[in-house]
Amino acid sequence: MEEKIKNALSEIKRGCAEIIDIEAIEKLVRNFYEKGENFYVKAGFDPTAPDLHLGHTVLIQKLATFQRYGGIVQFLIGDFTATIGDPTGKSETRKVLSTEQVLQNAETYKEQVFKILDPEKTEVMFNSKWLSQLGTGGIINLASNLTVARMLERDDFSKRYSSNTPIAVSEFIYPLLQGYDSVAMGTDIEMGGTDQKFNLLMGRTLQKAYDCKKQQAVLMTPLLEGLDGVQKMSKSLGNYVGVTDKANDMFGKLLSISDDLMWKYYELLSTKSLEEIKQLQEGVENESLHPKKVKEELAMEIVDRYHGKGAGELAKIEFEKIFAKKDIPTDMPEYEFDSGIWICQALVDAKLVNSTSQARRDVKAGAVKINQEKVTDEKLNLESGEFILQKGKKNFAKITIK
Amino acid sequence: MEEKIKNALSEIKRGCAEIIDIEAIEKLVRNFYEKGENFYVKAGFDPTAPDLHLGHTVLIQKLATFQRYGGIVQFLIGDFTATIGDPTGKSETRKVLSTEQVLQNAETYKEQVFKILDPEKTEVMFNSKWLSQLGTGGIINLASNLTVARMLERDDFSKRYSSNTPIAVSEFIYPLLQGYDSVAMGTDIEMGGTDQKFNLLMGRTLQKAYDCKKQQAVLMTPLLEGLDGVQKMSKSLGNYVGVTDKANDMFGKLLSISDDLMWKYYELLSTKSLEEIKQLQEGVENESLHPKKVKEELAMEIVDRYHGKGAGELAKIEFEKIFAKKDIPTDMPEYEFDSGIWICQALVDAKLVNSTSQARRDVKAGAVKINQEKVTDEKLNLESGEFILQKGKKNFAKITIK
Repeated sequence: MEEKIKNALSEIKRGCAEIIDIEAIEKLVRNFYEKGENFYVKAGFDPTAPDLHLGHTVLIQKLATFQRYGGIVQFLIGDFTATIGDPTGKSETRKVLSTEQVLQNAETYKEQVFKILDPEKTEVMFNSKWLSQLGTGGIINLASNLTVARMLERDDFSKRYSSNTPIAVSEFIYPLLQGYDSVAMGTDIEMGGTDQKFNLLMGRTLQKAYDCKKQQAVLMTPLLEGLDGVQKMSKSLGNYVGVTDKANDMFGKLLSISDDLMWKYYELLSTKSLEEIKQLQEGVENESLHPKKVKEELAMEIVDRYHGKGAGELAKIEFEKIFAKKDIPTDMPEYEFDSGIWICQALVDAKLVNSTSQARRDVKAGAVKINQEKVTDEKLNLESGEFILQKGKKNFAKITIK
Repeated sequence: MEEKIKNALSEIKRGCAEIIDIEAIEKLVRNFYEKGENFYVKAGFDPTAPDLHLGHTVLIQKLATFQRYGGIVQFLIGDFTATIGDPTGKSETRKVLSTEQVLQNAETYKEQVFKILDPEKTEVMFNSKWLSQLGTGGIINLASNLTVARMLERDDFSKRYSSNTPIAVSEFIYPLLQGYDSVAMGTDIEMGGTDQKFNLLMGRTLQKAYDCKKQQAVLMTPLLEGLDGVQKMSKSLGNYVGVTDKANDMFGKLLSISDDLMWKYYELLSTKSLEEIKQLQEGVENESLHPKKVKEELAMEIVDRYHGKGAGELAKIEFEKIFAKKDIPTDMPEYEFDSGIWICQALVDAKLVNSTSQARRDVKAGAVKINQEKVTDEKLNLESGEFILQKGKKNFAKITIK
């Protein structure tokens, strides 16, 4: 029993950026193991954008982890503010949704998250239910629980206030609403990104103010780096893997990440236990395992998750058919060019021949291939794209022209 | 016509501390004279304290002035916040009222203000009607119209923020509600004290934000000094005349004010025209009028207002019966003592005799009266109170022992 609880906590903590009140979480897990009692884990989602990428799934997988140890997920769709609208027309970012749109988006969410979450242990909730009932008086009472000074401590408010960037009074109300959700929902643990810390703590503050029996613990997940390994994964940056991406695209994108990033992804995205991951790492370190092999395994696991068991294997075969035919090595020198280039110059720059005249002779002799197709025109210009250059049987280079 | 409008504006401006958008007010008055169109003048009242004193009536009389020039008074009872309550129990000053109490207080208000206002041109309104309908979304939209920085410009907020005195976020909502009242009520002019300036302007701001056809003008009345002529009239300071005070008390209190204060009261409390008041002032200056006479006239006017025509005259007669019998002059030297005093010493200090031995002889001879009663005991000690000392037939002094 103690071993199980210890293991559960270690899986819960895995990859977390910050946890507030781990003692409360331990108590909840213990209660589950000892008495079979469940507890509520809340996470809020924006109803306007039900288009998830792997960055979002870090949190969702943590919710799934909780489900294994007694957690009932409160999948909260924050539809209330989206349905209000902004009569002053000042806010361009605020998109108004109809109830129908909200319900439709909720269905899209479900399709996506139930690949990760257990639907039997998930309650999809809409905060308009209790927030619209709060009413004028309820909002004022809610707002009496926090001071202006405390609000202005929030990082972004503090920065905007000191730089004279306007903050609407209504913006002070949104964190209060998020906190009140936890009051209304009887949440035990709330999850969110590190950038949500202030709002997540609001739930604790308000549960206390409203004399709730308990104050929620808070668990924050880190931001996932995108495929570039530098910036956070985001649709607008283009460095993302969408959970609705096609299997082959998903597999290909995941194979393109660096080895360092791969381990980060393993920690945050794989359901392999920490022990299993440790073994993989040791295998790579002592060279009994090739890193590409390990990367493929990760990619297959993720493709399987979103496209069904076996889809990862198929994607791998497909990928190999295109990019990794038997007579092309998996590793070869890579070169990048900023603009189109003459084939003979490319052969020189890629160090496959010593001179353009030699290159010309080789092309004429039929000894040069591009993407495994023989080149016959020694005047050929290569435009943008990826090309595998080959001279003879054994000399390869990959060139990328921007 | 132009003369009438000019005169109306001069009466409207009379005694005001500050007016914002006098042009709009002139337009409304002109519209009334030219087309017979009415306009709305709003003033808000606290539903918890329907116990008015003359300090409050400065504003109410200005409302009555507007009624003479086309104004329909919106007598707004701010019942909404009083009926909300404060579940956190932090606010000790906030008294929760039931609807019954609010209606009862409204009746008390009516009894008092309809001595001044024309009921036919007065609409008693309750802001719970539209504020409770505003709802959660309405409040958030309302709060989107103002920035935190702008709120913190309000004098008291600014002071409290910089001195780290907590400001609840809900306190930012109250001025917005007051402003929204003007939106809901279609107010043309809002009145209030100078300390309300920020909130009064909120009506203008929000009428603009909500695309109302017009923005209200704002007219601020000054604080009325209490009977002491120094601090503002207030129940807690005891320097007030309540509109429900008995006629005799009212008359006596008003006769106790200084001559300087009397002119202030004339300007702010009398319905005499500015021209009439000017004539009184000239009369006093060229000594054709005794200031006490002028003060009595003011006192009678005010007593008449709250106790019916003729009540002032009666109060005056009653007052004279007690304090101003025929054989006692209305004016006499006055002296004050901090503690009880021996009668003979009092006669000396009041300059009625030259020595205590002389005083003793006069008492023995039956030549000394206190409050018109002969004194026989030369060892008499006078304790606290007001006494009229008399030596012989013509020498008087009034002494006050604290």
